[in-house]
Amino acid sequence: MRDFALDERLERDSERVTVLGLCQLRLLKDSRWPWLMLVPQRKGISEIYELTPLDQTLLTFETNSVAAALKKVTGARKINVGALGNIVGQLHVHIIARQEGDPNWPGPIWGYGSAEPYPDDAKKQDLLKKLVEAL
Amino acid sequence: MRDFALDERLERDSERVTVLGLCQLRLLKDSRWPWLMLVPQRKGISEIYELTPLDQTLLTFETNSVAAALKKVTGARKINVGALGNIVGQLHVHIIARQEGDPNWPGPIWGYGSAEPYPDDAKKQDLLKKLVEAL
Repeated sequence: MRDFALDERLERDSERVTVLGLCQLRLLKDSRWPWLMLVPQRKGISEIYELTPLDQTLLTFETNSVAAALKKVTGARKINVGALGNIVGQLHVHIIARQEGDPNWPGPIWGYGSAEPYPDDAKKQDLLKKLVEAL
Repeated sequence: MRDFALDERLERDSERVTVLGLCQLRLLKDSRWPWLMLVPQRKGISEIYELTPLDQTLLTFETNSVAAALKKVTGARKINVGALGNIVGQLHVHIIARQEGDPNWPGPIWGYGSAEPYPDDAKKQDLLKKLVEAL
């Protein structure tokens, strides 16, 4: 974790929910989908396979814990998980709750339209409270 | 693996390269990007967290081995990894080699345009030969 610094764009586009063993858990500032992100607190990593085997296993565990909690809390039809990083090189894993008929369903959420901030803090806080309880 | 049957659409859109410990490794019939897919040979699984912890670890190991090999073979700028499954419910993990300026760069490959079959078998076989050697 020493020397780890969060990428500026990730910092701007999301807010920190909590810190797990390896990763920061963050919520994207986009209310179109319940959209979380895990950022391993390791310096200079852009591909998952660059992590140590232990960190890879931790990332798997944290990704799947968050995915299961998000499914439970949202009743999503499908959880989407992706590590792209074509724009921001610092390794980050997206975890998104999808519903039939949501924006761009059944296509991907990445690169679609523009972010829509949460209209009120209550909706966001309710999601985060339930999520943290489910974790 | 008993009772496992590959989804018909996955079968149609890709071809089998080899079988790893847990997954079938398959190549998408789309020459726009070097595009691989891992399908865990387990029945009735649509989310990664539904796999047993051992299978989750195996999937992580196989995903990262394939990603590293694909990076080495293609010299990709970035590897994209994603498990979406909004259209096909059977769990499958995409692993794609991306280059600056490739179709829809830096956006996602999913839901973009239409598949373009490999124009000749030689190009495909060359990719697969190098890939299997690198694994």
